[in-house]
Amino acid sequence: MSSAFDAVEVIRTKRDHEVLSDDAIRWVIDAYTKGGVADEQMAALLMAVLLNGMSAPELSTWTAAMIESGDRLDLSGVSRPTVDKHSTGGVGDKVSLILAPLVAACGAAVPQLSGRGLGHTGGTLDKLESIPGWRAHLSNEEIVRQLDEVGAVICAAGEGLAPADRKLYSLRDVTATVESIPLIAASIMSKKIAEGTASLVLDVKVGVGAFMKDRERAALLARTMVGLGGDHGVATMAMLTAMDAPLGRAAGNGLEVTESVEVLQGGGPADVVEVTVALAHEMLALAGITGEDPAARLRDGSAYAAYRAMITAQGGDPDAPMPVARVIEPIVAKRSGRISRMDALAVGVAAWRLGAGRARKEDSVSAAAGVVCLAKPGDEVEEGQPVFELHADRASVLDRASAALDGAIDITDGPVAPGPLVLERIGS
Amino acid sequence: MSSAFDAVEVIRTKRDHEVLSDDAIRWVIDAYTKGGVADEQMAALLMAVLLNGMSAPELSTWTAAMIESGDRLDLSGVSRPTVDKHSTGGVGDKVSLILAPLVAACGAAVPQLSGRGLGHTGGTLDKLESIPGWRAHLSNEEIVRQLDEVGAVICAAGEGLAPADRKLYSLRDVTATVESIPLIAASIMSKKIAEGTASLVLDVKVGVGAFMKDRERAALLARTMVGLGGDHGVATMAMLTAMDAPLGRAAGNGLEVTESVEVLQGGGPADVVEVTVALAHEMLALAGITGEDPAARLRDGSAYAAYRAMITAQGGDPDAPMPVARVIEPIVAKRSGRISRMDALAVGVAAWRLGAGRARKEDSVSAAAGVVCLAKPGDEVEEGQPVFELHADRASVLDRASAALDGAIDITDGPVAPGPLVLERIGS
Repeated sequence: MSSAFDAVEVIRTKRDHEVLSDDAIRWVIDAYTKGGVADEQMAALLMAVLLNGMSAPELSTWTAAMIESGDRLDLSGVSRPTVDKHSTGGVGDKVSLILAPLVAACGAAVPQLSGRGLGHTGGTLDKLESIPGWRAHLSNEEIVRQLDEVGAVICAAGEGLAPADRKLYSLRDVTATVESIPLIAASIMSKKIAEGTASLVLDVKVGVGAFMKDRERAALLARTMVGLGGDHGVATMAMLTAMDAPLGRAAGNGLEVTESVEVLQGGGPADVVEVTVALAHEMLALAGITGEDPAARLRDGSAYAAYRAMITAQGGDPDAPMPVARVIEPIVAKRSGRISRMDALAVGVAAWRLGAGRARKEDSVSAAAGVVCLAKPGDEVEEGQPVFELHADRASVLDRASAALDGAIDITDGPVAPGPLVLERIGS
Repeated sequence: MSSAFDAVEVIRTKRDHEVLSDDAIRWVIDAYTKGGVADEQMAALLMAVLLNGMSAPELSTWTAAMIESGDRLDLSGVSRPTVDKHSTGGVGDKVSLILAPLVAACGAAVPQLSGRGLGHTGGTLDKLESIPGWRAHLSNEEIVRQLDEVGAVICAAGEGLAPADRKLYSLRDVTATVESIPLIAASIMSKKIAEGTASLVLDVKVGVGAFMKDRERAALLARTMVGLGGDHGVATMAMLTAMDAPLGRAAGNGLEVTESVEVLQGGGPADVVEVTVALAHEMLALAGITGEDPAARLRDGSAYAAYRAMITAQGGDPDAPMPVARVIEPIVAKRSGRISRMDALAVGVAAWRLGAGRARKEDSVSAAAGVVCLAKPGDEVEEGQPVFELHADRASVLDRASAALDGAIDITDGPVAPGPLVLERIGS
């Protein structure tokens, strides 16, 4: 096959708004993964894709080629129905930590293979690694066994899953070709399909703190991913959820684990519970599990028991004290009134600057750093009352973090009606 | 300046149809030339430029940055007015070989710094290198002295002229970003402006044998280049000339030198003479030389004398016999009638396959190989009469060359009215 194609011809086809053949797509992805197509050629192709788009059949083949660049996990040995969730990333979005054991407690198996966080939204692995002893790397056999016995695995995606995506993602990052809906959809779905789940719920975040600021583009991304799931035999639906304010009160690795445990013990912030339960309902429906009430599983302790089993199975100590920040500094309200707006992006950037996130793949993250929102939109505050609490390992990072929060909230005298969290269901 | 910019931001600006600032353009060209911007980043930017275009001010700065990436030749010491010609390349286009000494014989200085040919159109340096002893590489001092004494130099452009163009051209070649009018214009004009000529005539070829098949795109390229010349203080005009049939009868390195000498001695094919004289008139006008008749200079031997001086000054022997092909094979007319069409591209590809051109920069070319057109459009032929003569160094290349000429001519019973050669004047 390889001799029948030429990278320049493939680029030219997309450049000239023509349709790429299935063979051309499979060839270019395979040759790029193996090094036969150069970075500069793929960069030109990616820019042409970003500007000229891809049809649904082209994108389906593109995604298939990315999956075929590596292994597809075989979960057929798992006795429970498999269902996963993917979030496009939001500030304070600790839902995965709660949802995986919750849905496991309802009888499904949740194979959540994840990456690291980059930028202002944290990664699920980074959060769990603040638990002493917990390890992210499991063998395929360990994954299957844990899914069978515990019903939930959150672990690192192995190098063998969609290696084309790893190479393409690094290239997109330096060539301003990240913001392409077909390329985003192929990146997410190739990894999720390769991980072997039978069904999938997508949480597509929309708002100032999300990658997708715009509801129409978010809906388009959601529809594109739902279509790709169907093309590859994975029952997929998507929810658009709001990401204007942070989700919950904590943004930061250890801080979010602590908040997740509160929810798993039947408490925690109402917004986190609402989104988690809504996603759990969708996952159970796709998994064909009826008669389960996820909210009750949070209250009756069975979700928390599944969480403890999940953490323990991966070497973590669920009873170990969480790391505590050496420096904690409040930021106070400048006037009295009701909080009408809290900028999730500002909170995410502050947490990142405090040490909770990384700027480059190689960076390490702090387990203790982050932001706690002591008040949320709709809450009344007095002038001088602490609204945020900055947590850090050293005082030197406080100034830049605090600067990120300048203008991050509005306080009003009038009434405040927070908008809905769940905006739209797409698919299935 | 370098710390103020980020390649991803520059790419994103052009990707999103925004205007690149002058500083951003100068930074990205400089950083790319020096290796601080990676090939894959420049490839993405070039594809964004190809698809989203550049405004006239952006392109002017882009071209300036390419010029500033290297040296600009100082021809202020030359006592004659300097004027150059550039052709976008055609099959059998040997006009430079005749025009440089012809315009020199009329009192101007022609500093023709050239590159090698690539693909189906031959390069002027390749043609002259079929003359025993002739050398393409001169120092800047030799160029200035020869311009002063002889009035014409055709030589290789040094490494120091617009090095950004050399790097960009190689990249465009492998990323399907050659066919962008702003990038073509910047590539040509950066080199011509850097060579130091005071004025410039552009011969933009249009037709099946030219890089520009389409008259509107050719006119747009011509206007773009004329504008860039003006922006950089080089008086520039362009002529669109037809390239549907080969120019003259010979396509091939040594064969074209021989035909050029015929024209310089007052004979040769009428079409070559017509285009050469028309271009000479424009060059003399731009150089401010009045009262000269180029056609008379071809007839009276003074152009030929200048040619001999130009060749001799660069070590060539104008009296040496030209290399002769070891294999010569005719292709005959399949029917009697009048030739109504002769496909320049087919003739160019045949000459290339015979050994006259190169597929890659590193390839060498044959001095003797090529195609001679024994008849041209408008000529009557008898069935079985030779129309083409294939010249090659070895018989093994004949079949593929001959295949390129299948269907290359039409023969009709009716009258044939060949179209005009000079299509349009643009600028000045």
